Amino acid sequence: MTPILQAVAPELLPFTASNIADAIDHLNACDSAVAVDVASRLPLARLIDMFDRPELQRAGGLIARMPDARAAALLEGMADDRAADVLLELDDADRARLSGRLRSGTLEALRQLMRYPPHTAGSLMTTEFVSVPADWTVAQTLTHVRQVERSRETVYAIYLLDPASHALVRTLSLRQLIAGDPDALALSQAQRTEPVWVAAHTDQEEVARLIRRHDLLAIPVLDEARHVLGVVTVDDVLDALISESTEDAHKFGGLQAIERPYMRTGFWSMIKKRAGWLCALFLGEMLTASAMQHFDDELAKAVVLTLFIPLIMSSGGNSGSQATSLLIRALALGEVRLRDWWRVALREIPSGMLLGAMLGVIALIRISIWQFGGIYDYGPHWVLLAFTVAAALVGIVTFGSLSGSMLPFLLQRLGFDPASASAPFVATLVDVTGLVIYFSIAALILGGTLL
Amino acid sequence: MTPILQAVAPELLPFTASNIADAIDHLNACDSAVAVDVASRLPLARLIDMFDRPELQRAGGLIARMPDARAAALLEGMADDRAADVLLELDDADRARLSGRLRSGTLEALRQLMRYPPHTAGSLMTTEFVSVPADWTVAQTLTHVRQVERSRETVYAIYLLDPASHALVRTLSLRQLIAGDPDALALSQAQRTEPVWVAAHTDQEEVARLIRRHDLLAIPVLDEARHVLGVVTVDDVLDALISESTEDAHKFGGLQAIERPYMRTGFWSMIKKRAGWLCALFLGEMLTASAMQHFDDELAKAVVLTLFIPLIMSSGGNSGSQATSLLIRALALGEVRLRDWWRVALREIPSGMLLGAMLGVIALIRISIWQFGGIYDYGPHWVLLAFTVAAALVGIVTFGSLSGSMLPFLLQRLGFDPASASAPFVATLVDVTGLVIYFSIAALILGGTLL
Repeated sequence: MTPILQAVAPELLPFTASNIADAIDHLNACDSAVAVDVASRLPLARLIDMFDRPELQRAGGLIARMPDARAAALLEGMADDRAADVLLELDDADRARLSGRLRSGTLEALRQLMRYPPHTAGSLMTTEFVSVPADWTVAQTLTHVRQVERSRETVYAIYLLDPASHALVRTLSLRQLIAGDPDALALSQAQRTEPVWVAAHTDQEEVARLIRRHDLLAIPVLDEARHVLGVVTVDDVLDALISESTEDAHKFGGLQAIERPYMRTGFWSMIKKRAGWLCALFLGEMLTASAMQHFDDELAKAVVLTLFIPLIMSSGGNSGSQATSLLIRALALGEVRLRDWWRVALREIPSGMLLGAMLGVIALIRISIWQFGGIYDYGPHWVLLAFTVAAALVGIVTFGSLSGSMLPFLLQRLGFDPASASAPFVATLVDVTGLVIYFSIAALILGGTLL
Repeated sequence: MTPILQAVAPELLPFTASNIADAIDHLNACDSAVAVDVASRLPLARLIDMFDRPELQRAGGLIARMPDARAAALLEGMADDRAADVLLELDDADRARLSGRLRSGTLEALRQLMRYPPHTAGSLMTTEFVSVPADWTVAQTLTHVRQVERSRETVYAIYLLDPASHALVRTLSLRQLIAGDPDALALSQAQRTEPVWVAAHTDQEEVARLIRRHDLLAIPVLDEARHVLGVVTVDDVLDALISESTEDAHKFGGLQAIERPYMRTGFWSMIKKRAGWLCALFLGEMLTASAMQHFDDELAKAVVLTLFIPLIMSSGGNSGSQATSLLIRALALGEVRLRDWWRVALREIPSGMLLGAMLGVIALIRISIWQFGGIYDYGPHWVLLAFTVAAALVGIVTFGSLSGSMLPFLLQRLGFDPASASAPFVATLVDVTGLVIYFSIAALILGGTLL
């Protein structure tokens, strides 16, 4: 047996011989008792690498059940943004117990990080970055980077600070640094333009937008005096973007965003996330029953009208859902701004009329074929009925496109996330109005004959 | 006037004095003639930086109208993945004319890149990366990186190749390199585990997943002999992810994905993207009319039944839309695999029954209040009617949750993207079945009384 294999017990090999991502998958798949045992016996450096990744599940639960000294060493070794997230998962007693074991410097940094609200730059940032005075040379800076490399989450962006005020002067990338003449000032190698930065309370979507816009690997978080509080790295942003698009997809599907994986969300918490919207939509949709009651005379006289109710209503909902999904994305990506609402309206009205007319023509053909083909008899006034259906389709698809496209603007105007506009919500909105449009057109065209 | 300000004409200052992203916004806002004029006169290095970003609009159109020599110098200077994208935007004549001006090495690299299908690693990758023989020292490697830094898109990942076969041996990050002892072998500083890599035909979603899973700044693209063809960098993946989530949002909203910004998509191409699905859904929804025709006797006998049709159908659609959005994301993130379909079904059936029962209770209360309050008279059999509606809701919401959750699995099983399952599609599926469920339950409960 070679000394290397002796170093860890054979049952730990799946956690040490593979890459970090696979090791995490292995640990996630273990049940709690085994996972605590493994975590207590793995080489500390390996365990730190695993706990540094947000993909590791139950991180708080595992750390709470490890021996205190090991848990403290782990928290000290982890990137501080992750350590703060893990501490937030603990209950108050465990957090107090482990906090007492931490060095005061670490504890202060973690307390600071835990103070920032979720989804902000402050909650995503790490305080483990590299900064040097702006009057250092390339050689001095490179030596410093080499010395601190192990303890920093990123060294690819180096922050040059005013030697007196410690305010951020310029950002320097590691590639610019190594390309420089050793005796030159590091500042001479830096970006010539003002550094791009965010504040601690900046929303993570805006952080992602800036990182993407300027092709950055990290963005500094500054306070009012332009001191660097921390940096947000591109991998954190990537994770934030993924969870943001999951949230948006859930909201558009008409439920509250679910943060945990589907299979790990409890039955009751899943029901809670879904029942709220489902009941709210149901109450809204009850207005359709009220609308129908209002038209019950017409319904009794012309049962044939009811045959097309689901068809007409769903077309309105579908066109609304299309328009909403288009505008939610356009607003999220900044392609369209709030003040552009009327431009969008001026596009959606003719689009809706044209799309509605297409469906109207299909409906005319369908009714004619059924009538002439003897498949169904729509009665003596079938031509008028067919035109009623076609006209209602034009009206309802236009209304659907218009209201579906305006809803995200309205939500943004009222201070809500435009992505809260969901397909079911738009459908409900359009269903109620759609019925009114249908029966009004029917009264107009069929009045005196069928009605 | 200082020499630096003299170097460019004052009207070019907005393009040279600001950061690249702002300069691009300025150029995007100019009309074509002005943009060509500006592009022809800007310092070449600045122009290259601007054309390297996919955010620059009309890149192909601008390059086609610049003087040939300048266009060629620009293409030579640009990152080759972007240059290939821009060449693909040109018409055949322009492409042939400018290709003739390129150096043969560049032309060969660009031809290679243009061959890969869109949305693959090959189409995203750049061939401008750093690789060195695996027997070089840290100092040798660092000197090489310094020399080639300007001409490489990324230097943060360095690929160590077998000196004889040129196959990839290990990946080395720049931070690992600079932390190393100058006389040590570069290989000794490298990752100990096998490099993570993709093939040229790997889908961009998988590339993004791997970059995210392993927290990479770049991932190598290998051929069968493990030669490095190119690398995909994290900023390209970020852009790809954003356009992928836009596509998914559009598909879920029930239209074909639109790649250009909303306001820059022509009226007719917008209609085309929407009309296809809208008509297809309309044809599907026509089955509701057929279902209703089948039940026209019941409808004529009990008009009161029709009052609840929109309410019941929409609840099925809403619960289906919830389940679909949950499962699309769970499948996209790999939280749930194809073989887990039955586990999901076993969760969705009780969820659907419970959610349906909640709505059923609300419906019972609503009908009782209206009846007792004298707001509407549902007739002598109103209690039976109320229970018919409640029972139908349980059945339809259960069916909606089940079919909405199974549809993404079915699509994946058939080789389609699960994200093609749209809210309107699920709604249509559930609407038709929902009617049948409603009328069957009505026949069962109301048979002999109302029917």
